[in-house]
Amino acid sequence: MKRARNIQHAWILACGTELIIGHCADTNSAWLAEKLASVGIETERIVTVPDRATLLANALREAAAAGDLILLTGGLGPTEDDLTRAALAEVAGVPLTIDPPSLESIRAFFAERGREMPPANEVQAMIPRGARALPNLCGTAPGIGIELQGTPCFAMPGVPFEMRAMFEREVLPELAALASSRVLLSRNLHCFGRGEADIGQSIRDLMAPGRNPIVGTRAGLGVITLRIDARAADPPTAESMLDEAERELRARLGPIIYGRGDETLQSAVGELLVAANQTVAVAESCTGGLLGKLLTEVPGSSRYFLGGILSYADAVKTRLLGVSQETLRSHGAVSERVARAMAEGAAAALASDWAISITGIAGPAGGSACKPVGLVYLGLKTPTEVQVSEFRLGEHTPREVIRERAARCALNLLRLALLERAKSDTPNPQPGSNHPAKPV
Amino acid sequence: MKRARNIQHAWILACGTELIIGHCADTNSAWLAEKLASVGIETERIVTVPDRATLLANALREAAAAGDLILLTGGLGPTEDDLTRAALAEVAGVPLTIDPPSLESIRAFFAERGREMPPANEVQAMIPRGARALPNLCGTAPGIGIELQGTPCFAMPGVPFEMRAMFEREVLPELAALASSRVLLSRNLHCFGRGEADIGQSIRDLMAPGRNPIVGTRAGLGVITLRIDARAADPPTAESMLDEAERELRARLGPIIYGRGDETLQSAVGELLVAANQTVAVAESCTGGLLGKLLTEVPGSSRYFLGGILSYADAVKTRLLGVSQETLRSHGAVSERVARAMAEGAAAALASDWAISITGIAGPAGGSACKPVGLVYLGLKTPTEVQVSEFRLGEHTPREVIRERAARCALNLLRLALLERAKSDTPNPQPGSNHPAKPV
Repeated sequence: MKRARNIQHAWILACGTELIIGHCADTNSAWLAEKLASVGIETERIVTVPDRATLLANALREAAAAGDLILLTGGLGPTEDDLTRAALAEVAGVPLTIDPPSLESIRAFFAERGREMPPANEVQAMIPRGARALPNLCGTAPGIGIELQGTPCFAMPGVPFEMRAMFEREVLPELAALASSRVLLSRNLHCFGRGEADIGQSIRDLMAPGRNPIVGTRAGLGVITLRIDARAADPPTAESMLDEAERELRARLGPIIYGRGDETLQSAVGELLVAANQTVAVAESCTGGLLGKLLTEVPGSSRYFLGGILSYADAVKTRLLGVSQETLRSHGAVSERVARAMAEGAAAALASDWAISITGIAGPAGGSACKPVGLVYLGLKTPTEVQVSEFRLGEHTPREVIRERAARCALNLLRLALLERAKSDTPNPQPGSNHPAKPV
Repeated sequence: MKRARNIQHAWILACGTELIIGHCADTNSAWLAEKLASVGIETERIVTVPDRATLLANALREAAAAGDLILLTGGLGPTEDDLTRAALAEVAGVPLTIDPPSLESIRAFFAERGREMPPANEVQAMIPRGARALPNLCGTAPGIGIELQGTPCFAMPGVPFEMRAMFEREVLPELAALASSRVLLSRNLHCFGRGEADIGQSIRDLMAPGRNPIVGTRAGLGVITLRIDARAADPPTAESMLDEAERELRARLGPIIYGRGDETLQSAVGELLVAANQTVAVAESCTGGLLGKLLTEVPGSSRYFLGGILSYADAVKTRLLGVSQETLRSHGAVSERVARAMAEGAAAALASDWAISITGIAGPAGGSACKPVGLVYLGLKTPTEVQVSEFRLGEHTPREVIRERAARCALNLLRLALLERAKSDTPNPQPGSNHPAKPV
């Protein structure tokens, strides 16, 4: 292919009306972009178009003019609204013809499953004249490799597992050989406990446009994720740039960084509890079980999570957690005093070393001037004391966001207390020793 | 705005490197496309670009030339990689200026939470000269309404709940007044208890390509959603087409349809419990709180949800639910007998009318030949008896999917039992009366 020696920039196209209004998320494009980055190709744009012939053909023409490479997913099915084959032929200015090996494969696909090929599937063996069919080992639709106005284009099925298998087998090896040799590797670090702007201030120089490696931030449910991108001539060099940037970020931000990659607040808490050989229980009111659900997302959490009490009704707070009716009456269910009694009650009822309690107003109703929606008290029972923290998560914040944030604030309080305790339990760390309390 | 009288076609832009390679799915664009369809505006293209100034500005220029309307999400944060404000100003050919009311709102946002505004957040009050700031009630970044080469453009935050609130309040009313009159309305009906292919067989004729209204299906966590799309000259006509199609679907599928639109299994259960004036409690092992979390997603669930016990450790099953050590030893924690005892124990401990228990093997470890990963027992204590059901959710199913499905199976068992009971409680419904037991 003409531009083959120096593929640097790609456009990724996704075709399908269901991706636009069907609530069907396009997971293919981001997956492809990450694969391209691993061979040094940067994705400049992802374009999603509905199943309409003109819109798809226009997008293909623009992509051919703008990029060094086009990857397209979707629209290769056997029904009326599958338009990719026709659009590729139109843009390439050639007719569609039957590809006999593809027809053979489609027949074999059905024969293997003991079925006749429905006549409707025959159209899937049509490809633009001069194009190359890409075998599909997992489904009926072959992919298509074609050149559009000098730009290489690979069209693949929209079904994610078919697309992934085809890309890995038929497309990636070719791109790896043809792409420029530079790679882009990424790493995510997750923080909790400071705002995005505040963190941005501390690492502003590392985020400057044009820097390499460069750091970017994003926020969700109180978690701030730092993404480090490193571009280099080869993967080992990019990896060591990522290591260096991670060291710098950890030095500046300290224990607010709780993990990297797939690590979560709950997995960080889990590692600390396992290391300390201690157990935890929960008492939840407004979160109704969410905190327990998060803690038990971690496989093996039975090593430290004993269980808990969902005390949604005040009667349950009294009956199972021993919160006195007097305390409930005089302070209200959402109060420092009740959070404290709930944490104590959970630790006593479940015989755990640690306990966390949550009581708050998740809304949308139930707020007042002095106790607005978003007011949350978190109780933390450590092996030696009970601490209560107050949070105000916003009167206009949706119910689910208040609940998700409150549960994450609780996990973070527990994490920081466990870290603190692990530090004080090892009073004389040897210089250079592998300090057991390092954040995970 | 110039083209205001006839907005027919829109481009939706999403800005953020994390949407391209960060494993962060763009849920905003499809949500916006559906809202636009409801006022007769068709989305011709969704474009995703990384956080790079030139690429964003190019996409804005192309969108301004091609469409009648641009909606843009993302890039309004306070850090270096938030480039939307600057790109809009560049394309509009005007400088950025401080918008004093926005600065005031940002200060107030922090004040409400008892914090000083970090200096970095001041940049979020900058908007292109002549543009209009769109208030953000849920976060710090105001949106921006601006005209780009004659095309109206609305830039909104990338955080979904902030974007949705802003769009509904600030953008949609304006578009509804200006859009063309031909509409596409959609309605979702949700089913539980039969597979997608099985349901597809029963409604095949309603799914035929080209039909109007047309029905499509999608599946997730055991829930099958039927989407009805109706195209018509005006909203009332489209609405009555949707009503007619919904009647037909309900007639064919019966009580497996549990709700429509935003309704969930847990909201359906809630309505039935409120109608029956009864209460429910939970006892959860492998789901660790997820069932309680789902039940309490419903605002006002305190009318019927008392709480529950998370008995992750066997000792807690004995201590708080009264499951005998003998039963645990001889039958194992994942057994019909333990599920039964947990449901009875929860109803007794919390004094509830109904109780649901879940005990199972969520994996990835802990399975055996006779009790594989995915084996789940659900106990249902009704006011008169205890029923236990066994489910096998698949040895290779991921932990989170097993947990989510188990919790939904439990909600559906409760729903069907409540429906059944409501039917038998009203032996002589008056014709035309408002039957309290109708599915919601």
